[in-house]
Amino acid sequence: MITLYEFAASGNCHKVRLLLSLLGLRYESVLVRGNELEHKSPAFLARNAFGQVPVLVDGATVLRDSQAILLYLALTHGDGRWLPASPAGEAQVAAWLSTAANEVAHGPALLRSHYLYGRAIDVPAAEAITARLLAILESHFATHEWLVEGQASIADLALYPYLALAPDARVNLAPYPAVRRWLAAVRALPGYVGMPGMHDGA
Amino acid sequence: MITLYEFAASGNCHKVRLLLSLLGLRYESVLVRGNELEHKSPAFLARNAFGQVPVLVDGATVLRDSQAILLYLALTHGDGRWLPASPAGEAQVAAWLSTAANEVAHGPALLRSHYLYGRAIDVPAAEAITARLLAILESHFATHEWLVEGQASIADLALYPYLALAPDARVNLAPYPAVRRWLAAVRALPGYVGMPGMHDGA
Repeated sequence: MITLYEFAASGNCHKVRLLLSLLGLRYESVLVRGNELEHKSPAFLARNAFGQVPVLVDGATVLRDSQAILLYLALTHGDGRWLPASPAGEAQVAAWLSTAANEVAHGPALLRSHYLYGRAIDVPAAEAITARLLAILESHFATHEWLVEGQASIADLALYPYLALAPDARVNLAPYPAVRRWLAAVRALPGYVGMPGMHDGA
Repeated sequence: MITLYEFAASGNCHKVRLLLSLLGLRYESVLVRGNELEHKSPAFLARNAFGQVPVLVDGATVLRDSQAILLYLALTHGDGRWLPASPAGEAQVAAWLSTAANEVAHGPALLRSHYLYGRAIDVPAAEAITARLLAILESHFATHEWLVEGQASIADLALYPYLALAPDARVNLAPYPAVRRWLAAVRALPGYVGMPGMHDGA
């Protein structure tokens, strides 16, 4: 049995729930009590020294980091559908996983954390990262349906949540029609699940 | 023929040069003229829309992102030596590649960019990220020789450069003996190459 330790409102947890649903996998969800700082407790830090959700447990495997969890699920249950088989294709996916861990985390995800939860951040820096990223994505999606090799992959799932949640981050997607087309294409994937109560349906 | 577009003083380029050397691969180095903003030129942006080095070209494959390039080289030339074969092992490596793209980039790498090149950053935020990361690594290396599964992998190479370059970032590694032991173990790998003229030999 797969167990997912998560926050309901986390985009990083949403991307994992999304792939679990796309793959049709059953799992147990354990909601970590963030308001009680359960993710900083000794029991949780033993699973993830970084004190962050999501964490996925599958038998003896304990995995932190939403990008790594996507890769694990694609490798173990994807039947080649969510990760290109070629080294070049897999590496192109890895480049976008880095973008998720870097620009997405320090752009739209950080802005959302600021506006929803009052986290103190450098707002202009996060806005600049977000604007640069959106310009690159708009240009990419003007000529590509998906991030890598003409098929939906874990790269798309890794970038999706915090771009779909742009309204929470006070980021206006109106100037980015190709990005909005791609967001709608992710939502149209068979098995898609959204974040209940969140602003990701725009 | 493999071609690497790079800056001499970039830790992200160093990690790629390091794996190329450990694998005994020949390649052509193209030094990008950063002081002339060549990495922001249309010709370079056609290779990498992010306008960053390194970029690796191998035949028809054009790859951005140092983590993705490490993965590509390990998959194509590693013979299983630099990436665990199991999905769980590969995913554990991926988690550390995210750490390289996130905490390392926004911690010690950003501090180095500030102190060496005058980049305007939030110094206390980058110092806090660095301190948290070093505490986690010190605890890990107190009981583990390498980041993943008891063998040197691209995870170690991805984290190595900007931690080895800590003096440039005005980060004191004296309180982290296990991290220093691991840095020395990377330097002892057969085929290791350092950054000429840089402070990574401490």
